[in-house]
Amino acid sequence: MTEGNGAVDVIVVMGVCGSGKSSVGRHLARRLGWPFLEGDDFHPPENVARMAAGVPLRDEDRRGWLDAIAARLAVARAQGRPVVVSCSALKRRYRDRLRAGAPGLLFVHLDGARETILDRMARRTGHFMPASLLDSQLAELERPAEDERALVCDIGPAPEEIAARVAPLLAGLGLDGGRVHQRTGEASAMAQGNSADIGVIGLGVMGRNLAANLADHGAVVAGTDLDDGRRAALAADVPGGVPCAGPEEMLAVLKAPRVVLMMVPAGAAVDALLSALLPRLSAGDVLIDGGNSHYQDTRRRAAQASAAGVHFIGLGVSGGEEGARRGPALMAGGTVEGIGRVAPLLRAIAARAADGEPCFARVGPDGAGHFVKMIHNGIEYADMQLIAEGYHLLRHLGGVGYGRLAEMFAEWNGGELASYLMEITADILRTSDPETGAPILEVIRDAAGQKGTGHWATTAAMELGMPAPTIAEAVHARCLSALKEERGRAASAFPPPPQAVPPDGFAADVGDALLCGRIAVYAQGFAVIAAGSRRFGWDVDLAAVAAVWRGGCIIRARLVDRILAALRRTPDLPNLMFDPDIAALLARGEAGWRRTVGAAVAAGQPVPAMASALSYWDGYRSDRLWANMIQAQRDFFGAHGYERTDRPGMVHTDWSSGR
Amino acid sequence: MTEGNGAVDVIVVMGVCGSGKSSVGRHLARRLGWPFLEGDDFHPPENVARMAAGVPLRDEDRRGWLDAIAARLAVARAQGRPVVVSCSALKRRYRDRLRAGAPGLLFVHLDGARETILDRMARRTGHFMPASLLDSQLAELERPAEDERALVCDIGPAPEEIAARVAPLLAGLGLDGGRVHQRTGEASAMAQGNSADIGVIGLGVMGRNLAANLADHGAVVAGTDLDDGRRAALAADVPGGVPCAGPEEMLAVLKAPRVVLMMVPAGAAVDALLSALLPRLSAGDVLIDGGNSHYQDTRRRAAQASAAGVHFIGLGVSGGEEGARRGPALMAGGTVEGIGRVAPLLRAIAARAADGEPCFARVGPDGAGHFVKMIHNGIEYADMQLIAEGYHLLRHLGGVGYGRLAEMFAEWNGGELASYLMEITADILRTSDPETGAPILEVIRDAAGQKGTGHWATTAAMELGMPAPTIAEAVHARCLSALKEERGRAASAFPPPPQAVPPDGFAADVGDALLCGRIAVYAQGFAVIAAGSRRFGWDVDLAAVAAVWRGGCIIRARLVDRILAALRRTPDLPNLMFDPDIAALLARGEAGWRRTVGAAVAAGQPVPAMASALSYWDGYRSDRLWANMIQAQRDFFGAHGYERTDRPGMVHTDWSSGR
Repeated sequence: MTEGNGAVDVIVVMGVCGSGKSSVGRHLARRLGWPFLEGDDFHPPENVARMAAGVPLRDEDRRGWLDAIAARLAVARAQGRPVVVSCSALKRRYRDRLRAGAPGLLFVHLDGARETILDRMARRTGHFMPASLLDSQLAELERPAEDERALVCDIGPAPEEIAARVAPLLAGLGLDGGRVHQRTGEASAMAQGNSADIGVIGLGVMGRNLAANLADHGAVVAGTDLDDGRRAALAADVPGGVPCAGPEEMLAVLKAPRVVLMMVPAGAAVDALLSALLPRLSAGDVLIDGGNSHYQDTRRRAAQASAAGVHFIGLGVSGGEEGARRGPALMAGGTVEGIGRVAPLLRAIAARAADGEPCFARVGPDGAGHFVKMIHNGIEYADMQLIAEGYHLLRHLGGVGYGRLAEMFAEWNGGELASYLMEITADILRTSDPETGAPILEVIRDAAGQKGTGHWATTAAMELGMPAPTIAEAVHARCLSALKEERGRAASAFPPPPQAVPPDGFAADVGDALLCGRIAVYAQGFAVIAAGSRRFGWDVDLAAVAAVWRGGCIIRARLVDRILAALRRTPDLPNLMFDPDIAALLARGEAGWRRTVGAAVAAGQPVPAMASALSYWDGYRSDRLWANMIQAQRDFFGAHGYERTDRPGMVHTDWSSGR
Repeated sequence: MTEGNGAVDVIVVMGVCGSGKSSVGRHLARRLGWPFLEGDDFHPPENVARMAAGVPLRDEDRRGWLDAIAARLAVARAQGRPVVVSCSALKRRYRDRLRAGAPGLLFVHLDGARETILDRMARRTGHFMPASLLDSQLAELERPAEDERALVCDIGPAPEEIAARVAPLLAGLGLDGGRVHQRTGEASAMAQGNSADIGVIGLGVMGRNLAANLADHGAVVAGTDLDDGRRAALAADVPGGVPCAGPEEMLAVLKAPRVVLMMVPAGAAVDALLSALLPRLSAGDVLIDGGNSHYQDTRRRAAQASAAGVHFIGLGVSGGEEGARRGPALMAGGTVEGIGRVAPLLRAIAARAADGEPCFARVGPDGAGHFVKMIHNGIEYADMQLIAEGYHLLRHLGGVGYGRLAEMFAEWNGGELASYLMEITADILRTSDPETGAPILEVIRDAAGQKGTGHWATTAAMELGMPAPTIAEAVHARCLSALKEERGRAASAFPPPPQAVPPDGFAADVGDALLCGRIAVYAQGFAVIAAGSRRFGWDVDLAAVAAVWRGGCIIRARLVDRILAALRRTPDLPNLMFDPDIAALLARGEAGWRRTVGAAVAAGQPVPAMASALSYWDGYRSDRLWANMIQAQRDFFGAHGYERTDRPGMVHTDWSSGR
């Protein structure tokens, strides 16, 4: 034996198909407290495709796969983290490739009679494996030789039992029912696993990118997903990433107190996962929901987790895929203690504002983070709609060409209107369709989708009684755009008014409308956050929200710097439009904004967001509104009562007497 | 004995306070299947006030009360419906007054020793009744004489037991533990109760008014409410109304299959009631929810009831208190069979359209009725907001005085704009404040409330992806108006633009804006109903909805006649604005509508609903909208993909390559 005198830190459970490699491997890993890797997760996509198509793998196909596993084992050993992996490893030369990654690794060979295996498969899966497949594998099998470090276990007992017998052997105890090639007395000295800093459940693009971002900043990331390919991608793409077969296995490899980040679709999946995880978590563990969950769900779940002593964090993550990978804006809601525990990690992966501050904050308890993220998305909807209306007006009323449009948006992006959305708008305007050479906007169908957080924001505003009409218009505008066919038919039937000539200085006016509209939208959003904070007792620090929104997120903009300054000057500002600096911007742009909406109205160009924002501003600034009429009507037909202007209290008029 | 040979059909359970009249009476009524009336419910308000103030009742106070009970007993007998009532009836002359209403009635006297009563009270209520009160009643008590038809029961046994002993006696069986003055062998012939046509649970103003409306149309209405006064009001105000102590007692008096109408606040109360009722209902019974429940709750409850074989009807009721009393619009969702069973009743109480048709329809299964009612309310919100904006513009931009405004709205109400809301608006405009003599609108505070169905309608529209922006604006406009103090401060800080002069013909333009805006709002509402019908497979007949909305409801309007005609012409009209007749109205008003919004925008007058409706129309009629930009942005930062104009399928651009 030229190898095998070191402590066992890498175990490969090997055997023909149906021998129970995965089951035994998982049980063994759990018993040892080590992570378990499913060897099949390391097949490159071409192999997966071949196998799915029923094409047998050739030796050259297996080579890349075995090398991927070997590389992973090398990393594990380099990081001092023991591991169990399953891999058929039928031939000596396959095992050699694995040993190249981790010399001295231990094979556990699950061996048994052909009939036993066939019977086992039938019992386990309820159907018979084609005997031909097993026969071809048995023909291929080269059992480990005497000079290979290996345990041979009979597959008769249940997988748990085999694991129970193997584990003590590693510490030099006896093994019943298995032939021992090599006893490894040194194994008793092995460290237990528990070496990962954070576990990510859900390795879709957002989860994987956050995992990679965490790994970039030195975290050891375990991860799991129902999808084999995604687990394999974690192993392949995230340095030091530890793919786990399921949450239970993942929990076993996490340092205590454990930190788990859920990146699964909002809704029932989160609840199911929460119920599965809570009994397995310990007091003091931290469970983060990084999806776009509804804040009311998060409030409920935080209470549920709290009852189990677990810190639940509702984490708003903005910045899309790119942000998740390179630096998102992070809005956390949860206990001070729970967030404190993960703050170093989250601060590390967050985007940075221009002053170097990480775009991460605890904005309040339980649902506050998801609430703030929801309003972020509402603002995003509305600002996108404003920009879209501005583009459309300039193009179709102003007659401006795409080249000039790109320049205009780029210029605006150099000034007060600077923002991420303006920047990508300029990029979009200068992009041509590779197929036709036309401006790409001319080939993109004008029917927009929506995913939910925009209408959640609108609904929350209404439930809180705080107006956010422009966010609402943006959601409805997307719905209207989606009626593409109806619109086409209506356009033929009902021509627009005669085309108007845009007023002089129209382009500058549109710029004013974009800036003033944006101010109104942020004002709506911040007022709704303040209302939510009051309703739910969150004590949200609005300035902290503004600070987070300076970088990483979709709505980052120069205006946010002004908002931050305003909120630092006056933390209890009732509405952003009250701030002198912001009010000055409004005052400067108001006339152009008004001319823009007026021109659009006259020309039959729909400007739902620009007009709504203007009505919001005009209404907010009106001492006297139309609502006295509404109150009179409600009292008339529903006896709702109304308040008088000259004294407090509700009164009711007997309207019939006056008729 | 000059009386008492007829079958017993009226039983008065009498005795001093604490003798258990109510308990025994209820148990006896339940055993017999008769309704039970709580005698104390018949006290006039003055008596209730005296008792609440601790002032003993005088003989003259008792007289009106006893006569009210006697009258109720006379009605019961006239209707052939037996009844049990509780009443202390301590003196012979009190009993005489009762006998005057129902000669030959049977008294059941609960008699017992002073100590037994005191002990009973202490056990039952956990506190001691002042002995002085009992002593004064005992002093007053004149036990029924031999010539009065009465049973005397010892109060020793539990109330259930006393009832169990009394009941068979009525059929001529022996009675243990009670002294028998009069045996009534004829009682065995008595009919069981089960005589009421419908039971109403929840006797607030809507429930009571519907009960009275039902009674007007010949229905025998049983009813119950947690509130004693409301039960008493049912007895007092609704001819033949049968107040019941609780749902169980009420179910006992209903004809089979039983029809129960719930008129309780939407939400948890409905669920609690449903759970309590379902085990007590039989297959084929009909349970109606006439409250403003959310349609998704109704869908869930209908499934729950269906599992028990009970027909659940979600009934939208519009028309306010007055409508409920004189003729509401009724939108029913439920099974064909269940609704068929109650259709004669509902048709009878519904409002009538001008052609005499009742404003009642089955609009679809389960939640369809509440969905249609919710959209009705959304349209109501938006039309009210449009009218409020029109009034406000004419008053504050047009400078029109209240007298002229009242005339203008009355004139409009005589033409194409005719509607209930226009009618009451004219009334409101001509109403003066009795205190100050000022136009009443000048003293009504311009801060509007909202109760939920408006924002439900908006949310449903968004969830269905069907635009209803003007309904949304109306909800947000109410929220904005409610920020009264902030608005006042903003008005001082930020003056509006210089006051503009309204354009010539401004008043007519505003009328055009009101009509066109209303068309857009109904178009949004009907499109959302159609979308809901598609989503939930309801197969809603839109023409039937229009037919119902012609009368009784808040949004009844001449326009609805045109809508009905349009939907009869083209049942699958994609949008009302496509109908030639309605499109002609739009075409006639469009220019004035546009001028109105333009003038308001220039003058700094907020017109959120008018402007939103115009953008909806302009957008609907646009073959090309701004949404290509939104799709490009979404694909840029979120890789959502987009569709091309020139071929089907989603594509994604690698935007970074073009930068």
